[in-house]
Amino acid sequence: MAERLAGLGHAVTVGTRDPQATLARTGADAMGNAPFAAWSAANAGIDVARFADAAAGAELIVNATNGGASLDVMAQAGAENLDGKAILDIANPLDFSNGMPPTLFVKDTDSLGEQIQRAFPAARVVKSLNTLNADLMANPGQLSEASTVFVSGNDADAKHTVTVLLKGFGHQDVIDLGDITTARGTEMLLPVWLRLWGALGTPVFNFKIVR
Amino acid sequence: MAERLAGLGHAVTVGTRDPQATLARTGADAMGNAPFAAWSAANAGIDVARFADAAAGAELIVNATNGGASLDVMAQAGAENLDGKAILDIANPLDFSNGMPPTLFVKDTDSLGEQIQRAFPAARVVKSLNTLNADLMANPGQLSEASTVFVSGNDADAKHTVTVLLKGFGHQDVIDLGDITTARGTEMLLPVWLRLWGALGTPVFNFKIVR
Repeated sequence: MAERLAGLGHAVTVGTRDPQATLARTGADAMGNAPFAAWSAANAGIDVARFADAAAGAELIVNATNGGASLDVMAQAGAENLDGKAILDIANPLDFSNGMPPTLFVKDTDSLGEQIQRAFPAARVVKSLNTLNADLMANPGQLSEASTVFVSGNDADAKHTVTVLLKGFGHQDVIDLGDITTARGTEMLLPVWLRLWGALGTPVFNFKIVR
Repeated sequence: MAERLAGLGHAVTVGTRDPQATLARTGADAMGNAPFAAWSAANAGIDVARFADAAAGAELIVNATNGGASLDVMAQAGAENLDGKAILDIANPLDFSNGMPPTLFVKDTDSLGEQIQRAFPAARVVKSLNTLNADLMANPGQLSEASTVFVSGNDADAKHTVTVLLKGFGHQDVIDLGDITTARGTEMLLPVWLRLWGALGTPVFNFKIVR
């Protein structure tokens, strides 16, 4: 996501708890990716900073954290650095504590998107992109045809900002589901997404809403 | 569904609690449809019988009931009339008790499909078609392009039987998600389906899995 945004000409800063510790890691991450320092060296134009420093200078914030950590990370970013800003929330409330496939730690009558909006009422949370693989979020053109992404949020301007960003990534069909409570719908897509990953043997797929 | 099956040459019996009472109703139903007797008169080749009588003679049973009534209706059909048979379960566990949009009375760690399978262990439950509008289930050709439906179940033969039926309806892309626990995924699609209905202003849409 950071690489794609930078490639489109945006000034990007990756937030982390402790930049020195993040850059000092030498092993592959849990997904088998090369150490962050290798990616950072190859993307020298993308800054790395503490969450609060990254958020302070940002026009738009992307919450690309593990869902279980999102509220803590946003608190570290600091409410004063979030107020008034659009937050593109791409996280999912996955609970891995009971094994695979994960369940959801919030659902149906509430959502992670709403939890973030309630915790930071002056921020303008837009839930989107949580319904597809990270690489496809930023580079949807690799699919055989155009597919669909969704936006949920209370602030029309923030949804417009995010929609322009999504179209810049190559998403041609963006459906506005309504206010942030509609994030319940897209977060509850994860269980079928996980089963489709298993059935198809690849995470390179997406939902298209055929009318 | 009954009309479409009959049109494809199947012998169809509609099960109900009390056929006389069902046929005696003169008002529109909760969805504004004409009384059942009018539909029945126009479809004279489709029998109407008590649940147990309908199930006794059936090779395949379609559970097209309100999700909240499904277990009770299947009990009225009688375990002895379900044993060994494929049950195409198209119901959803919608809970309307807290207003609109409905929530789900079972989800994430269990599903209605699994509840039915556990209650009738000798039946062969296949969850399918619960992810789209009833008219589109039976007549998907009205959409602008082919879309996707899913099957979940423990019995490969029953899933094959259902898949053949689905293809007969016109569903070209049928994805086998795995065993009946994968019904958790498709039942949890309902919350986003409900929000899409609101956002698009029509229930005439379906999910397509783009690879």
